[in-house]
Amino acid sequence: MTRSNADALLAGNRLTLADYEARHFGWSVAGKVATITLNRPERKNPLTFESYAELRDLFRQLTFATDVKAVVIHGAGDNFCSGGDVHDIIAPLIDLPMPELLLFTRMTGDLVKAMRHCPQPVIAAVDGVCAGAGAILAMASDMRLGTARSKLAFLFSRVGLAGCDMGACAILPRIIGQGRAAELLFTGRSASGDEGHTWGFYNRLCEPAALLEEAHKLAADLVAGPTFAHGITKKMLHQEWSMSIDEAIESEAQAQAICMSTRDFERAYSAFAAKSRPVFEGD
Amino acid sequence: MTRSNADALLAGNRLTLADYEARHFGWSVAGKVATITLNRPERKNPLTFESYAELRDLFRQLTFATDVKAVVIHGAGDNFCSGGDVHDIIAPLIDLPMPELLLFTRMTGDLVKAMRHCPQPVIAAVDGVCAGAGAILAMASDMRLGTARSKLAFLFSRVGLAGCDMGACAILPRIIGQGRAAELLFTGRSASGDEGHTWGFYNRLCEPAALLEEAHKLAADLVAGPTFAHGITKKMLHQEWSMSIDEAIESEAQAQAICMSTRDFERAYSAFAAKSRPVFEGD
Amino acid sequence: MTRSNADALLAGNRLTLADYEARHFGWSVAGKVATITLNRPERKNPLTFESYAELRDLFRQLTFATDVKAVVIHGAGDNFCSGGDVHDIIAPLIDLPMPELLLFTRMTGDLVKAMRHCPQPVIAAVDGVCAGAGAILAMASDMRLGTARSKLAFLFSRVGLAGCDMGACAILPRIIGQGRAAELLFTGRSASGDEGHTWGFYNRLCEPAALLEEAHKLAADLVAGPTFAHGITKKMLHQEWSMSIDEAIESEAQAQAICMSTRDFERAYSAFAAKSRPVFEGD
Repeated sequence: MTRSNADALLAGNRLTLADYEARHFGWSVAGKVATITLNRPERKNPLTFESYAELRDLFRQLTFATDVKAVVIHGAGDNFCSGGDVHDIIAPLIDLPMPELLLFTRMTGDLVKAMRHCPQPVIAAVDGVCAGAGAILAMASDMRLGTARSKLAFLFSRVGLAGCDMGACAILPRIIGQGRAAELLFTGRSASGDEGHTWGFYNRLCEPAALLEEAHKLAADLVAGPTFAHGITKKMLHQEWSMSIDEAIESEAQAQAICMSTRDFERAYSAFAAKSRPVFEGD
Repeated sequence: MTRSNADALLAGNRLTLADYEARHFGWSVAGKVATITLNRPERKNPLTFESYAELRDLFRQLTFATDVKAVVIHGAGDNFCSGGDVHDIIAPLIDLPMPELLLFTRMTGDLVKAMRHCPQPVIAAVDGVCAGAGAILAMASDMRLGTARSKLAFLFSRVGLAGCDMGACAILPRIIGQGRAAELLFTGRSASGDEGHTWGFYNRLCEPAALLEEAHKLAADLVAGPTFAHGITKKMLHQEWSMSIDEAIESEAQAQAICMSTRDFERAYSAFAAKSRPVFEGD
Repeated sequence: MTRSNADALLAGNRLTLADYEARHFGWSVAGKVATITLNRPERKNPLTFESYAELRDLFRQLTFATDVKAVVIHGAGDNFCSGGDVHDIIAPLIDLPMPELLLFTRMTGDLVKAMRHCPQPVIAAVDGVCAGAGAILAMASDMRLGTARSKLAFLFSRVGLAGCDMGACAILPRIIGQGRAAELLFTGRSASGDEGHTWGFYNRLCEPAALLEEAHKLAADLVAGPTFAHGITKKMLHQEWSMSIDEAIESEAQAQAICMSTRDFERAYSAFAAKSRPVFEGD
């Protein structure tokens, strides 16, 4: 491939998102870490049709972002997210014909797919209410920091729906175990921060005042690491979900061989040989 | 579909089970909650060829039951179930030709399949001995309440058999983790109530005297909920077991769209708008 | 099949390994329990190209071993294994062309496959450093005993690589949960013995001085059990990994019917009838 052909490849697959202007939530990028702020604190940061669609589109664009290597998602004020807004979402759904209902449930599912397919690790910083679709956003993230007062609730049964929303029946059991997931999905009950930590939903609990800072520290560590390799780690965690062990091992042999061909792998070894700390560049 | 055609559809797919007369265990229905009582307490409630077959047939019928929306299974006296009876089951198995051995192992497996396929959430109330096929019945339930003195043991290796009985090598690791499941299945050792709770096998521990009442309270909460949607939650927890994440999300988009077309979803919204509590009817 | 034909079958599928002379690690067999000792304690027992290949070949041979029914793997001195040696492995990998990189990653993956495919339960006794490929060896074992001071670290991201090494993205999440696994694989951070135990990575923690003895006791219990059936348990834990529940149940019906045709099953019943303890012989 000539260099000009390579440029053409890059042109269609590279984006900068630092100056993206979000319309339905807060968005900022600092030091390759993007922060998404669900920001209607007076209503505990509910989602709307518009914010769902914009989040889906943004996470899809993140696949091509050159200036974002990790994402932190959190809520303004003392809550993460109260889920789908009752007035803005549930009310209109009542009267929709089937094709439009499916349009809605596919849109919400596509948001989770986009979160799982982008190469950036996504860290949810969860304080206070984390309910319904909010619980799903936390679940669909790669890692989760919580607080003692965070309240996790898969509320769907409370509004007459099933627990199978946006992948919950597949993903939640793999995070906290099948029995605990069944209870949360059937009953819609709240789990405390302590429960969520004990069960492995939260990677750790933080003081509410330090939560966002801790999430940013974790993200900063990740972006200082081999970000191309992190993207491969994320892809393989997704890809091997329902493979046999033997298939997964062959897939990892190929994926890791790709990573062994990167400059970051060479940088790590050179730094080791020079007794210095490697500076990774993500290529 | 004309109404009379619909009636014909219902006729072949509707059953009432309140007046079912169980021959090999206790059976009662109150407030849409069925209670199965393994009731040979002098032997710690073992299973027999007859009780296996009857349980399988009953759980299959539950798919069509209109008057049962949750199931509690427990043991008479201070024990849940000691598993397959040594005299009634193990002795005759020794001499069976292969086709009949397979008939037996398929029958026991079909009981677990029937428990996973019926739409009702199944709650196991586990006190005392919960061993062998008894441990499987608890494992195959959707939720489990235990007591501090409950003793969980997948005894199969102690009788010269493998841990792969009635789905244990597939299901147990997803409830308590692969490493803990391997230990229980290889060694046949007992796990205490505390261990089972810490590992997520039991959803919580109760006082023995309050155990059955707690299980009935949980069941009562579930039958007061959107029972059609609960059946979908259960189906999807089963269905998505070995799907990829992307397949699971599409399946959930379809399944939840079905639930959004139910009257229970509308009831929930109407109640919310009227600031009252929804009364779900399961349709 | 005539007896002489049967002998021909056995001839091609039976090995004794007690007198195997290992070149790159310690190897000993006592009472049907083999012990593998990673034995370069001055470097914390790293792996080399040679030890990888020899371990792979040995675990493949274990499928045919008649004199080994369980395997204990541990490290000399106070550490389990520091992973791939930086000088012996990472340095040469830097310059390899792709086909040879893939040769390497497939070799390491084949070691895990061989550990999962041999019928013997493998017990890792983990003290001190358990890092990189060492962490993988522990993860790929069936059960793990740890110590309070054991340090588990999936270091790959620290050397510029992805967490998808030798099956880690598939296997680790099923042992400790998806969220905790993601953190370990993305960050490369160390998990303490306590964390590893709480999460279900270690089956229990032992005093360092008693660790190897405890692992041998557990192995001795297993080899006193129905070892043919144990091999089936191990095979089914592997085999059912990505099956649906219904497929897994049918597979177990067949697998358990096989075990019901063994003499060990009959021995267990005869011993029970005679109120004595069964003596299993593995056939």
